[in-house]
Amino acid sequence: MQREQRQRRERRTVGGIKQLPWRNHRNPYKPIEVLNEEQLQKIHDASMRILEEFGIEFLDDTARAFAVANGAEPVAGTQRLRFDRNLVLENVAKAPSSFTMHARNPAHNLTFGGNHINFGSVASAPNVSDLDRGRRPGTMSDYCDLLKLAQSLNVVQFIGGYPVEPADIPPATRHLDAHYSAITLTDRIWHPYSLGRERILDAVEMIAIARGIDKEQLKREPSMFSIVNSNSPLRLDTPMLRGLTAMAEHGQPVVLTPFTLSGAMAPATIAGALALQNAEALAGLCFIQMVNPGVPCVYGGFTSNVDMKTGAPAFGTPEYTRAAMAGGQLARRYKLPYRSSNTCAANAVDAQAAYESEMSLWGAVMGHANLILHGAGWMEGGLVASYEKMVLDAEMIQGMAEFMQPIEVNDDTLGVDAIMEVGPGGHFFGSPHTLARYETAFYAPLLSDWRNFETWRLAGGLDTAQRANVIWKQLLADFVPPPIDPGIDEALKEFVVKRKAAGGVSGN
Amino acid sequence: MQREQRQRRERRTVGGIKQLPWRNHRNPYKPIEVLNEEQLQKIHDASMRILEEFGIEFLDDTARAFAVANGAEPVAGTQRLRFDRNLVLENVAKAPSSFTMHARNPAHNLTFGGNHINFGSVASAPNVSDLDRGRRPGTMSDYCDLLKLAQSLNVVQFIGGYPVEPADIPPATRHLDAHYSAITLTDRIWHPYSLGRERILDAVEMIAIARGIDKEQLKREPSMFSIVNSNSPLRLDTPMLRGLTAMAEHGQPVVLTPFTLSGAMAPATIAGALALQNAEALAGLCFIQMVNPGVPCVYGGFTSNVDMKTGAPAFGTPEYTRAAMAGGQLARRYKLPYRSSNTCAANAVDAQAAYESEMSLWGAVMGHANLILHGAGWMEGGLVASYEKMVLDAEMIQGMAEFMQPIEVNDDTLGVDAIMEVGPGGHFFGSPHTLARYETAFYAPLLSDWRNFETWRLAGGLDTAQRANVIWKQLLADFVPPPIDPGIDEALKEFVVKRKAAGGVSGN
Repeated sequence: MQREQRQRRERRTVGGIKQLPWRNHRNPYKPIEVLNEEQLQKIHDASMRILEEFGIEFLDDTARAFAVANGAEPVAGTQRLRFDRNLVLENVAKAPSSFTMHARNPAHNLTFGGNHINFGSVASAPNVSDLDRGRRPGTMSDYCDLLKLAQSLNVVQFIGGYPVEPADIPPATRHLDAHYSAITLTDRIWHPYSLGRERILDAVEMIAIARGIDKEQLKREPSMFSIVNSNSPLRLDTPMLRGLTAMAEHGQPVVLTPFTLSGAMAPATIAGALALQNAEALAGLCFIQMVNPGVPCVYGGFTSNVDMKTGAPAFGTPEYTRAAMAGGQLARRYKLPYRSSNTCAANAVDAQAAYESEMSLWGAVMGHANLILHGAGWMEGGLVASYEKMVLDAEMIQGMAEFMQPIEVNDDTLGVDAIMEVGPGGHFFGSPHTLARYETAFYAPLLSDWRNFETWRLAGGLDTAQRANVIWKQLLADFVPPPIDPGIDEALKEFVVKRKAAGGVSGN
Repeated sequence: MQREQRQRRERRTVGGIKQLPWRNHRNPYKPIEVLNEEQLQKIHDASMRILEEFGIEFLDDTARAFAVANGAEPVAGTQRLRFDRNLVLENVAKAPSSFTMHARNPAHNLTFGGNHINFGSVASAPNVSDLDRGRRPGTMSDYCDLLKLAQSLNVVQFIGGYPVEPADIPPATRHLDAHYSAITLTDRIWHPYSLGRERILDAVEMIAIARGIDKEQLKREPSMFSIVNSNSPLRLDTPMLRGLTAMAEHGQPVVLTPFTLSGAMAPATIAGALALQNAEALAGLCFIQMVNPGVPCVYGGFTSNVDMKTGAPAFGTPEYTRAAMAGGQLARRYKLPYRSSNTCAANAVDAQAAYESEMSLWGAVMGHANLILHGAGWMEGGLVASYEKMVLDAEMIQGMAEFMQPIEVNDDTLGVDAIMEVGPGGHFFGSPHTLARYETAFYAPLLSDWRNFETWRLAGGLDTAQRANVIWKQLLADFVPPPIDPGIDEALKEFVVKRKAAGGVSGN
């Protein structure tokens, strides 16, 4: 049996919703290079000049003192630190170029590095939306539903943060409930927020319990990651510095992702925004390597642009796509894993949502991003997590996943004998060559409707968003939580109760 | 002034609809190669085996005899011709790898070859659709409206056939009215159908009049092109053979595009469909070079797949995308210009229409297709030309066009001094570096709505298709026909009257 056929046979059906099987995707094609060597060097030089001549603010005194003790130079009368380029490059060189992330379910381990491409869920939206209930602030119920959907969709391989903010539960203990749900409703890699030290330390305890390992093993086996978006331009604040320090101390990777919105927090040029992105990302990653040399970490790119007429942020623009690919070139220059995103600015799950997301996905996949954050469900520049968009994105991600499958070329697939047999004016539908691969020949979509117009119209004429609505409801109806050892579940619950009794997070 | 800025200043506004200026697009990035050298060789060998061992039907006696006189080998008792691989390769090698197409307006000349990327209108749809009037058979009025829209959109650079079939005018003289409208409502490269000899000869007369040149000059300056879709599998019929012969005799390029729908007219494997596509395309192009050695011609790829459950054709699938890129590799192997398409199977101008078209466009652009047929307006696998889809596609094409603009990296764009000036926690919106490029910094969309949700909702909450509806009406309201010399217009009219009086097309 052909490899392709075998994989298709494994396609998992969840309650009538057909989808691709879980797969660890690799991009077999060369990345698109939008910068030549000279341009790449110029951006590198510009970012080094920023760090050497001007520096970057570290608002946390402890972190700043630690960085100075490790070679950074304080700028008198400011909270800025200057970094010599050798200091930056030497530290960043300590990071591994590729590493394994250990999920609660080892079948869902991921590799961050090389040509491995991993897609995650939407993260950090304050609002949530679906066609039935409209747009509204996120709740714990929505948070859990979106986790269930992510777990139900094989192409959503990790949880990149809270899919939506569960704003109806108390902030001081919210992370405890959120972590418990992420651990038990999914069996995938997940993400605590680097908002100070305590949340990370709680996450460390919980992930160790969940995986049934001690913290020494956890250090060797990274099992969760955290995004840090530097406060562009040129600032790392106290909560993020304390959070990333705690992550690094425990061997867990931080994805340092400046949000360099061109024309707002970054210059109104792609080159300038990339220079700033690179300066901030490398300064943060350099600091992480000072904290724990050799700890895995990831270079994040999130350069987009504003609408110059209104200042509104735009996503999935042609500038965004090129910046995503250029970010990959920069990350590879430093031999670091790379993170990009699936973004859009659309207000409805319509054509704009799809084409902006496609422009983002192509930028990410052909930029060889190892983590594609916000892979499924992101709308309105991150202000909304959409149930229907999650299904739409899953379809688009499946398309990219299949695009990454190499074409099989051999005597059997070439089918020259079949072609001669069928002959001029014939039809391949009933030929033995076709019948032999009837079940497995082509990608079977999750969401696309290929019926002819009349059949489609008579069946209700549902548009893509309406069909996505039907699918997510079916997925939720069919949801079965991934198995968990009852003892582990009990221990997690006990930890949550104990920490809640202690009041949760007290400060940073 | 920067090149980028200069180009943006030239951005043309048609009656309040802002769009990119006319541009001759080049793809500065390396094409995506989905096949390695060995795979490419195997597909080549398979297609050569098909032509050498089995052959391809030529249903026209004259064409068959001519091919035999030029080295093809007749298969006794059939209408098939076998082609030796050396015969194929020697003939195909006579075709130019790149050539200029001469439009009525020389500013709209196109280059077919190299890394030049040209986008065309939808072509050959029997039906037409818009949000107000619904889906219906095409008429002359729709035909003209779609030509006007194409002419109004700078990124629609050529007319790839009748945008919709004007079914309400008599078939025998339809081409005369259709050609006259294409010549006068647009000033772009257009396309007569290779349906027999007479239509092509009429088109030759009309294009010579339109350009004010004689037929000798026309031979040196190709000014129109025609698509021939071989009757896959393995057949070229009489009308197409006579049409392409007439085109070749007059120095006008034919785009030989097998419609190798995998699982129907081609094997249910990408490799097999590509082998068949390659055999048919090269046999047709070999014949064209026999007719007129050195005449420009184009390798066309149109390999997609069916839904194996229903037999319904699917487009913009992951198979389609890879086949489009593989087709580019094959065309480059033979040093031929390459044609691909912007396709979708969607029944509504919604998310599916957008993501299937994006998958097609990325396949075409990164496959280095020189002609992207059906660039704007194609729906339902070609059964419908949609007014709204034409606007949606124009937006998506503009996105690709901007993606192909190289990033400018120099001291000015890097803006290191501006970054240091703005400093930590600052904002670039009011900085001199930003103000200097305020008008021109980023791509300004035709269709995307980047307003925040509340503003968008209060303004009516129009989805993308509804906004496209507003835009095409504005474009039609603002339409001004491109200038034409009154004497030429008169001569064209006289020609049409004369040929109509003679009854139009009598046979093949």
